[in-house]
Amino acid sequence: MKKVVLIPDSFKGTISSQEVCEIVARQVLRFHPEAEVISIPVADGGEGTVDCFLLSQPGERVSAQVKGPYFEDITADYALLDGGKTAVVEIASCAGLPMVDGRKNPKMTTTYGFGQLILDAARRGATRIVAALGGSCTNDCACGMAAALGVAFYNEAGEPFIPTGGTLRDIWRIDRSGLANELSGVEIVAMCDIDNPMYGATGAAYVFGPQKGADGAMVEELDQGLRHLSQVLIRDLGVDVAQLPGAGAAGAAGAGVVAFLGGSLEKGIDVVLDAVKFEELIADADLIFTGEGKLDTQSIRGKVVVGVSRRAKDSGVPVIAIVGDVGDGIGAVYDLGVSAVFSTNQIAVPFEEARLRAKEDLAATAENVARFAQLFTR
Amino acid sequence: MKKVVLIPDSFKGTISSQEVCEIVARQVLRFHPEAEVISIPVADGGEGTVDCFLLSQPGERVSAQVKGPYFEDITADYALLDGGKTAVVEIASCAGLPMVDGRKNPKMTTTYGFGQLILDAARRGATRIVAALGGSCTNDCACGMAAALGVAFYNEAGEPFIPTGGTLRDIWRIDRSGLANELSGVEIVAMCDIDNPMYGATGAAYVFGPQKGADGAMVEELDQGLRHLSQVLIRDLGVDVAQLPGAGAAGAAGAGVVAFLGGSLEKGIDVVLDAVKFEELIADADLIFTGEGKLDTQSIRGKVVVGVSRRAKDSGVPVIAIVGDVGDGIGAVYDLGVSAVFSTNQIAVPFEEARLRAKEDLAATAENVARFAQLFTR
Repeated sequence: MKKVVLIPDSFKGTISSQEVCEIVARQVLRFHPEAEVISIPVADGGEGTVDCFLLSQPGERVSAQVKGPYFEDITADYALLDGGKTAVVEIASCAGLPMVDGRKNPKMTTTYGFGQLILDAARRGATRIVAALGGSCTNDCACGMAAALGVAFYNEAGEPFIPTGGTLRDIWRIDRSGLANELSGVEIVAMCDIDNPMYGATGAAYVFGPQKGADGAMVEELDQGLRHLSQVLIRDLGVDVAQLPGAGAAGAAGAGVVAFLGGSLEKGIDVVLDAVKFEELIADADLIFTGEGKLDTQSIRGKVVVGVSRRAKDSGVPVIAIVGDVGDGIGAVYDLGVSAVFSTNQIAVPFEEARLRAKEDLAATAENVARFAQLFTR
Repeated sequence: MKKVVLIPDSFKGTISSQEVCEIVARQVLRFHPEAEVISIPVADGGEGTVDCFLLSQPGERVSAQVKGPYFEDITADYALLDGGKTAVVEIASCAGLPMVDGRKNPKMTTTYGFGQLILDAARRGATRIVAALGGSCTNDCACGMAAALGVAFYNEAGEPFIPTGGTLRDIWRIDRSGLANELSGVEIVAMCDIDNPMYGATGAAYVFGPQKGADGAMVEELDQGLRHLSQVLIRDLGVDVAQLPGAGAAGAAGAGVVAFLGGSLEKGIDVVLDAVKFEELIADADLIFTGEGKLDTQSIRGKVVVGVSRRAKDSGVPVIAIVGDVGDGIGAVYDLGVSAVFSTNQIAVPFEEARLRAKEDLAATAENVARFAQLFTR
């Protein structure tokens, strides 16, 4: 084989997507030493997304001095790709949940630093900014981000302030006229793999608030704040993002990216595929390996394996999925372009045991798929 | 693909080798409808061995009136293959453990009917008789078989008798001069996959006596009988079979087949491969599927997968093993001719759960191997 492309998701809780690439690449090269192996570990939009992009393509890591979740000074990194035209910024790098370990409070935390990163990237000339929304500690609907980018928020007394989750209900007026000129002509694309709306029973506060430290009363308070803000957004900015699928991502930063910056919410895998110019990349490939921890009927809605296969289908390049568990009723994935699916499970043991041997089992599976491919490609 | 050969063992306790063939054949034909699929379910030498041979090649099922384990009249079947030149007889068909359910007693039971089946086959012109030794309820060292074939046993008083497990120690003299003429020029090959000697701690009585109904005292008595008989065999027939690997098979019928009939003990898989003329059969095959319930370091000593791959290796035809569990340290199987190994496990669950879905999991694995092969063979 001349060219093999590896583009796996992580196996949640057991193997990172970088490690999956390393393990599979090693086995492919054992049996196909002549092959060029391209590794594209898929970022999930959370912590490590910047690293994934930088591992899968040439680029530059940039550090910036910005505000942390409690408005403290921190240094955060982002990536410049594609000769500086594309930037990848992580909300987790400046408002990440691990950064507030022991002091979680989604009423108080801000995404201000995230806005500063976006501004920094735009100032350096990025015209497409990928906003990775996973793993935030906030519930401010990205008002902090918007403030850093020049959007002004006023309370009933007409005083400007930077809203956080706990003060969303104090927003009386929003003025977007001061939005930084640097954002003009810049496309903002948020990686977003959840469908949750801005507020309500399946919204940001109710679904993600508890893991960010909110008790029942605080969840209700945060949700009320989001409801209030959504009305102000309709009135002052003319946008209704409340029910947009994904609006609830990252403490409703999904809603904020769309409402304040005119950004779009896209599936993470599609953003990755666009960033690496997937169709061009695979045009001369012999085989594509993808994978994820579990392939099930949910996967068909657009997780990594099906996200990859849909876009590889027209090329005719075979897509082999190596996955942890294979759920029942996954027949549709073949119609969606997956050529074959192999489970990594090598022995019948419960998951608690299987996870301890996950890397060895992945290697064994990749080895045998590579050995099998060798039969036909010598 | 033009021709695909399926030659799996059973998945012990979950899927018979016939079922494995049916399941894999269905998936192969789904994706390779043009292929000729040859199914050779591997017999393990126990009950069903005759059926397996008849399923894998043209042949005739023959019924014979013979003696059962308690010298009662029964009807037992055997197979004539290869235009009648080869017969396959099962000890389980006339002295099988299920036949004495509720009345197990290896001191009393006989292999007399087994000798009658061999004689019947020889009379019909078989020149090669495959003796399947699995699943017997006896411990008579095949003295019953020998008696049916004309070997005479005398006690100290000079009276002839037919020894059973409990009367082996009464054997004073053996006279083989009356052996049936019909056996002249007939080759007897016993299928034997165990290495146990005739007697002693790892011999027939100690290892297999308990499952045939012997308590501790009876095991010791049976073992003493075998020790005594082995001395008589040395003195009267000039053969020492005590330590022969496999002598302890089927209540020491392994020893008896060699000592009384000049037969040989061969690995079951090799007997099957010879019977189907394996090397000729695969000469124009594109792919061979084999499999077993568990591929582990023990398998390397010669169970079905490695037995098949060793003999396919020179042909260059790829051998794909589909197995239940894949043990650690099986790297040697690749050197022994296995091209690739795929576990049937699709999800991480303990064996008690996995066994309930074993057939579906086997089908899923075969499906994806067939899909994968399709990529390269269109």
